[in-house]
Amino acid sequence: MKGKRTNLDASACAIARSLGVIGDWWSLLIIRDALAGKRRFGEFQKSLGMAKNILSVRLQKLVEHGILATAPASDGTAYKEYVLTPKGKKLYLVLAALWQWGEEFCFAPGELTYDMVDRETQKPFQPLELKARDGRVLGPGDMRTLPRRASKAQRRASSSR
Amino acid sequence: MKGKRTNLDASACAIARSLGVIGDWWSLLIIRDALAGKRRFGEFQKSLGMAKNILSVRLQKLVEHGILATAPASDGTAYKEYVLTPKGKKLYLVLAALWQWGEEFCFAPGELTYDMVDRETQKPFQPLELKARDGRVLGPGDMRTLPRRASKAQRRASSSR
Repeated sequence: MKGKRTNLDASACAIARSLGVIGDWWSLLIIRDALAGKRRFGEFQKSLGMAKNILSVRLQKLVEHGILATAPASDGTAYKEYVLTPKGKKLYLVLAALWQWGEEFCFAPGELTYDMVDRETQKPFQPLELKARDGRVLGPGDMRTLPRRASKAQRRASSSR
Repeated sequence: MKGKRTNLDASACAIARSLGVIGDWWSLLIIRDALAGKRRFGEFQKSLGMAKNILSVRLQKLVEHGILATAPASDGTAYKEYVLTPKGKKLYLVLAALWQWGEEFCFAPGELTYDMVDRETQKPFQPLELKARDGRVLGPGDMRTLPRRASKAQRRASSSR
C-alpha cells in the first residue's frame, strides 16, 4: 500500500478500505452531526467551523460514496438537505466505539461533560463487546485475518488461464 | 470547533477528541499492524509503504499520546520496538467496527478475500451490537448526547466566582 490516501479505498483490507471510503476525520464528524439530526449545509458549517468550500467538497464525496444522499428541504424551501443512507447510518457503531474509547482514555476526571445515551432511557449504553460465534467475549489479542478459500468458480477461472 | 485538526484533541466531544488523539487514518493502520504483531519500524514501513520520515513522525505521536510505547528489541539487538499500551490495544473495537462496516458496504461480492476471525476457532465474530443497559439492541437513531449534571463541587466553584 503506497502513501497516498486515495489508494486506501481499493485496499484488500476491509479496515483500510473503510477508511478510504469514509475519507477523513472530518467526514466522521459530519456523519456524527447527521446522526444527531443536522441536515442543512449551514448547520454542518456552523457546527464544524469548516471553510465552506472544504465542507462542500467533503459532503459531495460522502454523497458519491453512498454515505449521504441529497433531498429537497422538507419544508418546501429551495435548500438542499443531506440525509444518511442506510450505509451511512451503519457507521453509528464506529462512532459509538470512538466515543467509548475517548471517554475511557482521553479525558481527565470530570472533564467530559457529556454522556452518550440511549434515547429511551437517557442512560449510557453498555460497553461494546466483540464476541465469538459461541458467545465468548474477545479481546484485542484474539483478532486474526484469515484468507478466504477461493470459491470453486474462482479456482476454475484460475486454472483455465 | 475550528477547521484545524489540532483543535480536535481538546474537543468537548469524545468522538472528536478520540479522532484528535489518534491523529489520522494512517495511525489507525499502524495500530492495526501493531495488533497483528508488527513491532519494528521496518515492518510498519514495509506494510504501509509510507515514507520513513512520515512514519517516524506518526509513530512518535502515537508514543506521545500513550497509544504505543517503545521497548528494546526482544532479541537483544539494538533495534527499537513499538508495542501497544492498554490504551492502544483498546482501539481494537474501533478497528473491528471499521472492518465489519467495510465488509458489509465496501466490497463487491467475492471481492473481499479475507475474513477477520477469532484466533481460537478461526471463525468470524458476531456482528458488534450497541446495547442499552437493559439489554435492548439499539440502532443509529437511538444515540443522543446528554450533558452531565455539574457536580456539587463544580456548582460551588461556579457560584463563588
